[in-house]
Amino acid sequence: MARIVVIGGDAAGATAAANLRRRLPDEHEVIVLERGQWTSYSACGIPYWVGGEVRSALELVARSPQEHRENGIDLRTGVEATAIDRDRKVVVTDQGDVAYDRLVIATGAEPVRPDLPGITADGILGVQSIDDGQQVLDAIHTDPRHVVVVGSGYIGLEMAEACVNRGLDATVVERSETPLRVIEPQIGEHVADAMRARGIELLTSTTTSGFTVSDGKVTGVETSAGTLPADLVILGLGVTGRSSLARDAGLALGVKDSIVVDQHMRAGDDIWAAGDVVQCTDRISGLPVHAALGTHANKQGMVVADAIAADLLGEQPRLSFPGIVRTAITRFCALEISRTGLGGQTARDAGFDPVVATAETTNVAGYMPGAAPMTVLMIADRPSRRLLGVQIVGAEDAGLRIDAAATALTAGMRVDDVVMLDLAYAPPFGSVWSPVQVAARAVIKQLDR
Amino acid sequence: MARIVVIGGDAAGATAAANLRRRLPDEHEVIVLERGQWTSYSACGIPYWVGGEVRSALELVARSPQEHRENGIDLRTGVEATAIDRDRKVVVTDQGDVAYDRLVIATGAEPVRPDLPGITADGILGVQSIDDGQQVLDAIHTDPRHVVVVGSGYIGLEMAEACVNRGLDATVVERSETPLRVIEPQIGEHVADAMRARGIELLTSTTTSGFTVSDGKVTGVETSAGTLPADLVILGLGVTGRSSLARDAGLALGVKDSIVVDQHMRAGDDIWAAGDVVQCTDRISGLPVHAALGTHANKQGMVVADAIAADLLGEQPRLSFPGIVRTAITRFCALEISRTGLGGQTARDAGFDPVVATAETTNVAGYMPGAAPMTVLMIADRPSRRLLGVQIVGAEDAGLRIDAAATALTAGMRVDDVVMLDLAYAPPFGSVWSPVQVAARAVIKQLDR
Repeated sequence: MARIVVIGGDAAGATAAANLRRRLPDEHEVIVLERGQWTSYSACGIPYWVGGEVRSALELVARSPQEHRENGIDLRTGVEATAIDRDRKVVVTDQGDVAYDRLVIATGAEPVRPDLPGITADGILGVQSIDDGQQVLDAIHTDPRHVVVVGSGYIGLEMAEACVNRGLDATVVERSETPLRVIEPQIGEHVADAMRARGIELLTSTTTSGFTVSDGKVTGVETSAGTLPADLVILGLGVTGRSSLARDAGLALGVKDSIVVDQHMRAGDDIWAAGDVVQCTDRISGLPVHAALGTHANKQGMVVADAIAADLLGEQPRLSFPGIVRTAITRFCALEISRTGLGGQTARDAGFDPVVATAETTNVAGYMPGAAPMTVLMIADRPSRRLLGVQIVGAEDAGLRIDAAATALTAGMRVDDVVMLDLAYAPPFGSVWSPVQVAARAVIKQLDR
Repeated sequence: MARIVVIGGDAAGATAAANLRRRLPDEHEVIVLERGQWTSYSACGIPYWVGGEVRSALELVARSPQEHRENGIDLRTGVEATAIDRDRKVVVTDQGDVAYDRLVIATGAEPVRPDLPGITADGILGVQSIDDGQQVLDAIHTDPRHVVVVGSGYIGLEMAEACVNRGLDATVVERSETPLRVIEPQIGEHVADAMRARGIELLTSTTTSGFTVSDGKVTGVETSAGTLPADLVILGLGVTGRSSLARDAGLALGVKDSIVVDQHMRAGDDIWAAGDVVQCTDRISGLPVHAALGTHANKQGMVVADAIAADLLGEQPRLSFPGIVRTAITRFCALEISRTGLGGQTARDAGFDPVVATAETTNVAGYMPGAAPMTVLMIADRPSRRLLGVQIVGAEDAGLRIDAAATALTAGMRVDDVVMLDLAYAPPFGSVWSPVQVAARAVIKQLDR
């Protein structure tokens, strides 16, 4: 009989625990230590709750602590792990030691908080947990007028729109020339236009140097474009792994403080890690990356459970986590924006010789009612003609077309293979060449020039 | 200098001609013989024109005969080819002989007209060309009350809905137990429910034995469920290759009278063929199939042009047509219906040992407003765990998810690989597991049972 302790009860941790419970005989113990009060919730849904599309945080919870307990998991909320003692095989918590035979670290990610004057003031919030979301909602209910979002990552942009939905003035400050740095500037321009059309003020090429504070509360954001009034500041600068426990326990950290794991998510002797806290491998470049997304967390939770069960039962693991291709999507200001694979710079950094083409097409056949424009950017490697990346921006029915591109990337297809794919066509769904194929033809035109 | 003659001016023929014109020096002649008055039109758009969503047939025309002429193509409308004399290298037409050095047959497909009593009556129409669509519209304008669609292929169903949109009563007669025989019965049931909800009468397990005729005009359809009154009958029994010219010229015909071609679309000495008239290879089973779709026609038109240009210029062809995976999609009665790969029976016929699972999921995260159900059916091969086929039915944002499945099929992925794909996720676009992955997990559960 073994005792498995999981630190963290959101996507990765709860998935690992649930899969372990299903797979292992009852004599094994599965304990989850969650420092908050929530489990298995959709962090990605927080902006829609703050914006009012989702009525209650409870709706974001896929499985409550009580439901986990009914499934045979010893789920303990309000317990904060403070250290991992690998010699004694004990998790030290604010409520005493918890011994483990196998340990899973699923502590998630935390918003980047730059070391700027005033950063600790009240009203400067990151948005990573339901409690963070509640803080934003509480702030909104005190009737603020101006929200400033520092940085323009996905969560930052989604929160800016949520605040506008709630009647606030929103300003986004971004130090690059276009918002959403994980997309190419050509696509970012469309996002910038949509933000301005939605009434969000966007300051690009603008750096943030500090915050003005009064009575311990933020009153403004100091930027290279002057001081912006702010009753509420949201940090949209991305996240890093919440890995201090792992670091202090001597585990190896990689990109953005994420924990280095193997393909079975093993981080060390009897220790595994999963979710927003771990480092992933980019399947195209082979390089390490940090990507905090629920999709990876759920898969990794499954892989961890399989690895530990195999270890305890003396079997070979069935699953391994193959890495990611950095697929992402958002709906923002009436646009759908999606990406997969490498961008121009990341492709060059990985040693490819990228050729980039952009294609304009429509979401339905041009002659159908409601036809709306869509832009597809594609990046391929010149010598091998291999597909490296795709980015899409457009109206409805644009974004999810990224999935075929992500699959083609993963399979190592050349742009020529993409053109010959048998993709779905009927007039209500596009033109006879799928948007991704239109872009592939544009790339081929450049390659064959 | 060579003269290339193309018989047929729609998708495949016009694409071949346009690509040849761009690729070849001016001294080569490109002639297109089109028996009708239209070129490069979207046959798939006809139901939406008949139904009133598209105002005019002109909107379906991507490039008119005059535009083709301005691009340097000798495009001749109203010229019907009646024979191919391979010894003399001449196309015999109703307006005299046209000599060729290289010939492309792009004569398209024709609706199946079963040899039943009364089949030649006025008012019994197939819908394959703009002229066919105009005949249906003319018939509708004579104020008919009852339309009967015999068979429930895509075009038949789309036309049934178009007629309901125009205020007619529509009945669909299908001899199988569920409509749309290219999808599995579990998915077909959803289609049947949607048809009935839309007010279309659906008679399944019903055979058609003939037509009642008065004054040369159809008045009813005789079926195993009795005689159905009909002012207008639409044939929805699928199509066969319009290949009599090719057959009479001694070219090999395959499935459903389609012309047998190699991967460069060559049908014989100095003769190529493309589009709805040719036989394709199913990339999963390796078996020959006939699939009349604009997507294939456009690709094949490109491949033909590349092959002939290479032949004339003494180069190696760059392109080949790799075959299809039978991807198809339609929007029908507020449903999106799509499919790719093999069905249960076609999988068994091809020597696979299929396992089938069905998953119920939603088009957006369950907690988002507007969440609507979606059903994904997946078929995999038991011993190899290879993905064989996927079928989807659901509300908006359901159908196009088939593209990732089609790409995964083409790449030969196993269901285990599908689960680990990095597909797009955000709450407005689905749950953390993409619908195709939910189905893959259901298949794996069965495989690992």
